[in-house]
Amino acid sequence: MGNSFGQLFRVTTFGESHGGGVGAVIDGCPPRIELCEADIQRELNRRRPGQSTITTQRRESDRCEILSGVFEGRTLGTPVAILVRNEDARPEAYEAMRHTFRPSHADFTYEAKYGIRNWQGGGRASARETIGRVAAGAIARKVLRTLSPQLEILGLVKELGTVHAAVDLSNVSLETIECSTVRCPEPAASAKMIELIERARAEGDSLGGIIECVARNVPAGLGEPVFDKLEADLAKAMLSLPASKGFEIGSGFAAARMRGSEHNDQFEHRDGRIRTKSNFSGGVQGGISNGEEIVFRVAFKPTATIAREQSTVTRSGEETTLAARGRHDPCVLPRAVPIVEAMTALVLCDHALRQRAIDFPRA
Amino acid sequence: MGNSFGQLFRVTTFGESHGGGVGAVIDGCPPRIELCEADIQRELNRRRPGQSTITTQRRESDRCEILSGVFEGRTLGTPVAILVRNEDARPEAYEAMRHTFRPSHADFTYEAKYGIRNWQGGGRASARETIGRVAAGAIARKVLRTLSPQLEILGLVKELGTVHAAVDLSNVSLETIECSTVRCPEPAASAKMIELIERARAEGDSLGGIIECVARNVPAGLGEPVFDKLEADLAKAMLSLPASKGFEIGSGFAAARMRGSEHNDQFEHRDGRIRTKSNFSGGVQGGISNGEEIVFRVAFKPTATIAREQSTVTRSGEETTLAARGRHDPCVLPRAVPIVEAMTALVLCDHALRQRAIDFPRA
Amino acid sequence: MGNSFGQLFRVTTFGESHGGGVGAVIDGCPPRIELCEADIQRELNRRRPGQSTITTQRRESDRCEILSGVFEGRTLGTPVAILVRNEDARPEAYEAMRHTFRPSHADFTYEAKYGIRNWQGGGRASARETIGRVAAGAIARKVLRTLSPQLEILGLVKELGTVHAAVDLSNVSLETIECSTVRCPEPAASAKMIELIERARAEGDSLGGIIECVARNVPAGLGEPVFDKLEADLAKAMLSLPASKGFEIGSGFAAARMRGSEHNDQFEHRDGRIRTKSNFSGGVQGGISNGEEIVFRVAFKPTATIAREQSTVTRSGEETTLAARGRHDPCVLPRAVPIVEAMTALVLCDHALRQRAIDFPRA
Amino acid sequence: MGNSFGQLFRVTTFGESHGGGVGAVIDGCPPRIELCEADIQRELNRRRPGQSTITTQRRESDRCEILSGVFEGRTLGTPVAILVRNEDARPEAYEAMRHTFRPSHADFTYEAKYGIRNWQGGGRASARETIGRVAAGAIARKVLRTLSPQLEILGLVKELGTVHAAVDLSNVSLETIECSTVRCPEPAASAKMIELIERARAEGDSLGGIIECVARNVPAGLGEPVFDKLEADLAKAMLSLPASKGFEIGSGFAAARMRGSEHNDQFEHRDGRIRTKSNFSGGVQGGISNGEEIVFRVAFKPTATIAREQSTVTRSGEETTLAARGRHDPCVLPRAVPIVEAMTALVLCDHALRQRAIDFPRA
Repeated sequence: MGNSFGQLFRVTTFGESHGGGVGAVIDGCPPRIELCEADIQRELNRRRPGQSTITTQRRESDRCEILSGVFEGRTLGTPVAILVRNEDARPEAYEAMRHTFRPSHADFTYEAKYGIRNWQGGGRASARETIGRVAAGAIARKVLRTLSPQLEILGLVKELGTVHAAVDLSNVSLETIECSTVRCPEPAASAKMIELIERARAEGDSLGGIIECVARNVPAGLGEPVFDKLEADLAKAMLSLPASKGFEIGSGFAAARMRGSEHNDQFEHRDGRIRTKSNFSGGVQGGISNGEEIVFRVAFKPTATIAREQSTVTRSGEETTLAARGRHDPCVLPRAVPIVEAMTALVLCDHALRQRAIDFPRA
Repeated sequence: MGNSFGQLFRVTTFGESHGGGVGAVIDGCPPRIELCEADIQRELNRRRPGQSTITTQRRESDRCEILSGVFEGRTLGTPVAILVRNEDARPEAYEAMRHTFRPSHADFTYEAKYGIRNWQGGGRASARETIGRVAAGAIARKVLRTLSPQLEILGLVKELGTVHAAVDLSNVSLETIECSTVRCPEPAASAKMIELIERARAEGDSLGGIIECVARNVPAGLGEPVFDKLEADLAKAMLSLPASKGFEIGSGFAAARMRGSEHNDQFEHRDGRIRTKSNFSGGVQGGISNGEEIVFRVAFKPTATIAREQSTVTRSGEETTLAARGRHDPCVLPRAVPIVEAMTALVLCDHALRQRAIDFPRA
Repeated sequence: MGNSFGQLFRVTTFGESHGGGVGAVIDGCPPRIELCEADIQRELNRRRPGQSTITTQRRESDRCEILSGVFEGRTLGTPVAILVRNEDARPEAYEAMRHTFRPSHADFTYEAKYGIRNWQGGGRASARETIGRVAAGAIARKVLRTLSPQLEILGLVKELGTVHAAVDLSNVSLETIECSTVRCPEPAASAKMIELIERARAEGDSLGGIIECVARNVPAGLGEPVFDKLEADLAKAMLSLPASKGFEIGSGFAAARMRGSEHNDQFEHRDGRIRTKSNFSGGVQGGISNGEEIVFRVAFKPTATIAREQSTVTRSGEETTLAARGRHDPCVLPRAVPIVEAMTALVLCDHALRQRAIDFPRA
Repeated sequence: MGNSFGQLFRVTTFGESHGGGVGAVIDGCPPRIELCEADIQRELNRRRPGQSTITTQRRESDRCEILSGVFEGRTLGTPVAILVRNEDARPEAYEAMRHTFRPSHADFTYEAKYGIRNWQGGGRASARETIGRVAAGAIARKVLRTLSPQLEILGLVKELGTVHAAVDLSNVSLETIECSTVRCPEPAASAKMIELIERARAEGDSLGGIIECVARNVPAGLGEPVFDKLEADLAKAMLSLPASKGFEIGSGFAAARMRGSEHNDQFEHRDGRIRTKSNFSGGVQGGISNGEEIVFRVAFKPTATIAREQSTVTRSGEETTLAARGRHDPCVLPRAVPIVEAMTALVLCDHALRQRAIDFPRA
């Protein structure tokens, strides 16, 4: 258990890095939404390995097939099942992992929990698992577009290693982000980040960073207190991603050093509706969206797979060393951007449907 | 919807700050666990208002009554319902809020979502709601004690405003924490924090901070990839708390600036079992506990209720000002410590039961 | 676990026959629904013991208190908690049950499952547990009335022991049913049923029967294939009631002996819309309501508590005998009618909200 | 929503009769269970069309592929995804259904609910959907075998049209059932049933019937009051099957005419444990298994698809007639037997895992 996400728009993912394939079943997708494989493929291509020189060279076309739930280009209201076959699996490359635990991977914990693990690659803990999430997120976006045509979700790399990008969120667009190989819309920072990644790779090392995500034109009223608050579900979504270590919304950890008189978002009447003057809340108050931009950040650790030799132990407890060979990302952030966006879309879509259910006409 | 938490050990809370009372129903509590009202009261007293000079003086005895699920001092396996009556409600004190939205409270968003709100106090968004969580957490602790007698959960105030406590986690105990009025076990920092709070109160202002929580002797194997990873459920638990703005586990946001070669937790054989040399993972790898200490931090914003005058608008959109009168906490952190612990206990208890279900005898 | 029902309109019940009380928490109730205690009390009074000469004389006023979720006569969108105190508990009357299993009660199975049971009465298996269901059902009716003002749910006693009532469903109303002490709207059958119950009671014996329920003016489109089909959720709702042994919808078991050419409900255009000429489907086709009357029946076994001496065993396995003393219903059906209706309301309300979530405007 | 079943052993099915395929994702399958495609194929072959002269001649090999969750012949604890491709789809045969509603099918209700339907066959309401259930049930059986090696689930055709089989449940085995083309272990009744089916087919008509199912050696203690009672979940499981109209357990509807003194299952000490002398309860008391045989019956209506001409209307409401051409089952019961068994296995497996979670060691 634990492979489903969402209450009404509910995605269940499946698949290991090696085996028949990976994918997702989306239950609860409203009917009559226009959907074709290209809608999904576009997003899958943004997370695909080998898309640039700074990502892993594992060769996967990641072609998706819609198995069910769509008829003549529109959703049926029945489960949408999506399958992506595994192609470039090289289990023999993992022979060393059969008995040895890679540091800061899930090898040891999967073995502790299940008493068995697919050692031919990352298994279920592989980043390939996120394919199902991205596919489901692409469908969630289509549903959101039907409900709120202006709603927009944009992720970007805010920090990478020691490089911090001073991004003006009001000026960011999908185009300015996608122009950058690392998905950082600030050109100078982007260039430094690429350089940093290339250096880390050359040194057999890896890097972490921070992704910032903004959701614009989210209607007020989404989020279900007290446990399914919007920021709580976003936090869960983000901490369920491989390699993520932290989540903060609005002011985030900086709020700890602020005073109420500076942090409070005072209300005013603006643009014909009630707005806040500042947005330290990050678009959510009391667990419910307030119509301002939802802004949050996710911290990612440096990739655990590195070429340098590290100490570790075998399944039977003998000490040994390990150095990764072969293909891997020296930094997951550029490819994590569409994944963060996908999870955001899943959360917003689920909550939009939940709100529809109880939002009776008002007098 | 959204008022239940947990899959197998499932708590549903209810209640507003004004009305009959607040409480919780816990479904899925295993049978034959010793439980009496004193077990719950002990924890409730730790979060009760008026417990010290630095907390709100709202007078609530917060006496709990177990309505069901316990017989002759032991749980029955049936739902445990707990009720705490509201006592010191002063709805007239809130008359000003009937038509005016308090900045950075949930007044506006509740109205946007539901088209109605209980303006006599914080309603459902009041911190009183957490009583049900703390009560449920006290029961979760009893269950955990049965399963893992050595398991221990400790929260403490790590930062408060500009004061940072250099806490040695290996030396911390419930006693050293509870000795401090602010629940910071480092005496010098504790004294400065108290001073800071008193000054903020005098200035009609409020403070935020960071709570650190450690769970010791958690067995390896808890957590359900890929969505119900242990850190994902912890993140959701923490971001569902009033005033929380961020969550990080292990290295957290600092991981963004580290390299894989320093961040990876290398394995070794120690104490007769497989251990990691460092613990940047914070006790969780791939979403599953690895037997090391689980360490995470939660950021809280400064209390939204302040005595200073602030700009805001009325329900009909007219601009006005507002200054809180009466009783409130200038800083929520000291009372939030037992709440953070309670949510941690709920997550760990739920996952311990989930793991029991599938953990068949191993050859 | 297992004490919650519904996906969006979700009721959690709690309470044993002896202890602080019984009740329910309803999460997911839409906001701004008019609701007061009298709305709930009306339905509770219909299931209350001692309402007539043919029911148990246990004296319980069954006064409900709304603890939360309602403000100034309307729902807040937050959990509605309802409490009914236990009053006429006589635990000493159950002393004999401490070590002895009553035949066809849940004493043995609760002990087998939980290793503990509240032997002071029926505990959680008592019919008192259904108070929470009836209270929740009363709220569900209010929600349904808002969504579908013409929707009506009527239960009646169709068979009791050997008496079968030839009821014309098209003529039945709440008034004609409530006129009858046994809730059978056919006067001759009603009289015979009352006589039968009185005779059974005099003989220290008990009776079973069949309740029929009709839901009129249910909109087409409710039900969520493939597992949450409308009839599947109704069947679960009914088989979760104490003493129920069977469920059938429309033609039910009689369908087994029919041919497709007689059973198929042919379509026609009538009343300005598409209707079926017959209604062997019972208002549901493929798991989804079709706008015709939903008609189903529930079989109840004779009350397990009888005054006659029966063989049984003690907890340690020694053979003994047992004869119930005191107050009990010789037949549960009259009081089960409002309970069947309540569960029906819960199912329909939940599915009405679920359908709202995905029913986007059609071109 | 509505395409998942089970709390801990949770199956999600997907797929329409026409499109890429049908299948299931099973989340919560314990790790280290031996499993291969042949385990699943064996059960799929029992429900496959064309297996005998009395079933539809639609030609589908129904070859299953395990896409994930299994490694070196054992389950990983991760989701098991299973895919069966659609092969013999003849959408052109359904051209008439594009605008016309087949009586007693789900055409009209799917259109009412979703505003769209896959008219090329039964779509999601097709019996092909049950392939995912049978595949999941085969895995559930493997898990149950690990937990309770003696546990056995057997379904059989008890009534078909006017033929009633006097089956001695104590003598029934898989072999005696599978010997019969209609899956009725009583040879004389079996022969008459086959004759009846052939006659109905010749007459362009169809038949209903009753399946009886027995589960032997189920441990006492399974079932979660008050809503997830074992019989409640079985009832839901059965009423979620296409064409089912009723469910009864133990005495079932006959209980309505019995008296408590004859219906109560008195306890005795037998075979070294506490047993009941009779089994009118059908193996479940108070919603929890008592260790006796679980016995229930499911009523199925006659197949809706018949060759005879019937009245109906088009989507725009014009009256017309329809006569099915082509391949279909004149009676679903023989093929429904493995489906009933599969759903039973899913319910028992789920509840066995749920009980494991809370069944702490007893003093």
